Amino acid sequence: MRKLINDPVNIVDEFIDGFVYTNKDKVKRIGINTVVARIDSPIKGKVGIVIGGGSGHEPLFLEYIGKGMADAAAHGQIFAAPAATYGLEAIKAANGGNGVILLYNTYAGDVMNFNMAQDMSRDEGIKVDTVLVYDDVSSAPLENKEDRRGTTAIPIIIKIAGNASESGMGFEPLKKLLEKASFNSRSLGVSLSACTLPETGLATFTLEEGKMEFGMGLHGEAGIKTVDIMTADDTTVTILDLIIADLPFKSGDEVIVLLNGYGSTTRMEMFIIMKKIHEYLAEKKIFIYASELGEFCTSQEMAGVSITLMRIDDEIKKYYDMAADSPGYVKMARK
Amino acid sequence: MRKLINDPVNIVDEFIDGFVYTNKDKVKRIGINTVVARIDSPIKGKVGIVIGGGSGHEPLFLEYIGKGMADAAAHGQIFAAPAATYGLEAIKAANGGNGVILLYNTYAGDVMNFNMAQDMSRDEGIKVDTVLVYDDVSSAPLENKEDRRGTTAIPIIIKIAGNASESGMGFEPLKKLLEKASFNSRSLGVSLSACTLPETGLATFTLEEGKMEFGMGLHGEAGIKTVDIMTADDTTVTILDLIIADLPFKSGDEVIVLLNGYGSTTRMEMFIIMKKIHEYLAEKKIFIYASELGEFCTSQEMAGVSITLMRIDDEIKKYYDMAADSPGYVKMARK
Repeated sequence: MRKLINDPVNIVDEFIDGFVYTNKDKVKRIGINTVVARIDSPIKGKVGIVIGGGSGHEPLFLEYIGKGMADAAAHGQIFAAPAATYGLEAIKAANGGNGVILLYNTYAGDVMNFNMAQDMSRDEGIKVDTVLVYDDVSSAPLENKEDRRGTTAIPIIIKIAGNASESGMGFEPLKKLLEKASFNSRSLGVSLSACTLPETGLATFTLEEGKMEFGMGLHGEAGIKTVDIMTADDTTVTILDLIIADLPFKSGDEVIVLLNGYGSTTRMEMFIIMKKIHEYLAEKKIFIYASELGEFCTSQEMAGVSITLMRIDDEIKKYYDMAADSPGYVKMARK
Repeated sequence: MRKLINDPVNIVDEFIDGFVYTNKDKVKRIGINTVVARIDSPIKGKVGIVIGGGSGHEPLFLEYIGKGMADAAAHGQIFAAPAATYGLEAIKAANGGNGVILLYNTYAGDVMNFNMAQDMSRDEGIKVDTVLVYDDVSSAPLENKEDRRGTTAIPIIIKIAGNASESGMGFEPLKKLLEKASFNSRSLGVSLSACTLPETGLATFTLEEGKMEFGMGLHGEAGIKTVDIMTADDTTVTILDLIIADLPFKSGDEVIVLLNGYGSTTRMEMFIIMKKIHEYLAEKKIFIYASELGEFCTSQEMAGVSITLMRIDDEIKKYYDMAADSPGYVKMARK
């Protein structure tokens, strides 16, 4: 294994300490658990936004707490859901008196634990509800789309949530806005190599050199097809065709594009893919409002990328255009 | 090779197109060469800042042009210096009438070509001078420190250059400020795997699984020692001891820390290393003013990290604290 760690048992605890050292003017650790919150939380009167899930996908989730982003994040061990008690702590840290929305990617373990945290919070008199993200078109057919996994749409949805709640939006309209953003998001990824679990040094799956898999999950869940490595252009068109057909995105639609690197894919490769995304969507007369490119949700050192399209309207644009200042995502306001 | 590209011959040209698509409100391409400039360049009256070097290290260099950063960047092919004519184009794009400072990492090919570009610009009546970055302590002994390679101090020096020049600093004081920032910067890296050249699919060197090399260069230049992979803590202390002894950094010094990932090293690992940096420098009574963590200068998918310390004073802090808005580095102003 080619990783720089200390005791494998303490990885998550140690990296969260390092995260807080790095960003000590912006974030704080809550209790002894793997829960972090923005330093000024809870913000009185603001609907709180809680995110979370397994560790190992950094910058997702914890680096997306901050101004214009989420209030608190609860983390599990590598690729494992956070315990319900951690979710409860995050909810309390984010609760400014007007309720808390849980916003996370759909995975069975996360849903079970966050639902328990939601119930416990309600028992304590805190208003809590949930918006799930289920953007991965490869993980279930369209008829069962709410069974799909969540992947890389979530950073944009967190930004919309953070800015709308900071702008004073109430609980119910905010929940509706986030459900709309989630419904209008579609993603699909391609993997060119496995990732290594840092606790064990073992790969999560094997992928022969020279092969790539479409639709592989963030933890090595089986995808929809394995093929010889294609060119960047052909890969891009294959992914976009599957995404476009799914919503479906139509001529005249306006979208935000997010191109995510899973770990060891270079920005150079990502820019080559982004060039083709722009050219291909122009052919389809789908208008790109904004392009995001980087590592937003990784799977350790996995090679590969995912593409997300979110169909947007004026309401989504309004909150997307505002500034964000979190450790893992900083943007000036769009003019 | 596990890379998503099209024709290996066109990699740099294509990725620069994709870079411009992604950031079309912020940057523009200059001519048909691999030269890019911030969209509002040249800025009248401002001393221009030109950066550049080989491609393949993204986000360095081209993603560091923008507000509070550099004005233009000239790129060569992968790991190869830009031609002198490209340097000349970048200088012209950045020249707002008060001269241009070339700011780049010390490598023989870059120095030769940028020196020619400097001469050609002077022949055309443009005031041009050069500040070199030579922060890699492993690449030459202290007595010959100006023969050292430049590595990962440069993003911070670019930020200081961009903000000082935008604040109206004149040519000579700016050159002195950048020389001071360069002189006070020290870096050292460790590699855990080789990187693959995208044109050929070949590794630049071999490094046995389970081994790590201290001081390896960004292109696989030999380092100072190869050892069995150490813990994150021991690696951090070994690097810091070499850096601290070199300037030397002393008790009471104030520093900016930059922790750079070379490509496939995760942010999780980087946070574990940053935790130890904070703890170890606290023992040494070296005060950390700010911590930067991420991929600032990569070597394709190489595994490993480098640590940079820059000793700072009030003048450096003033310009470091200002906001920056470039494709590869966005920061709000520090309060």
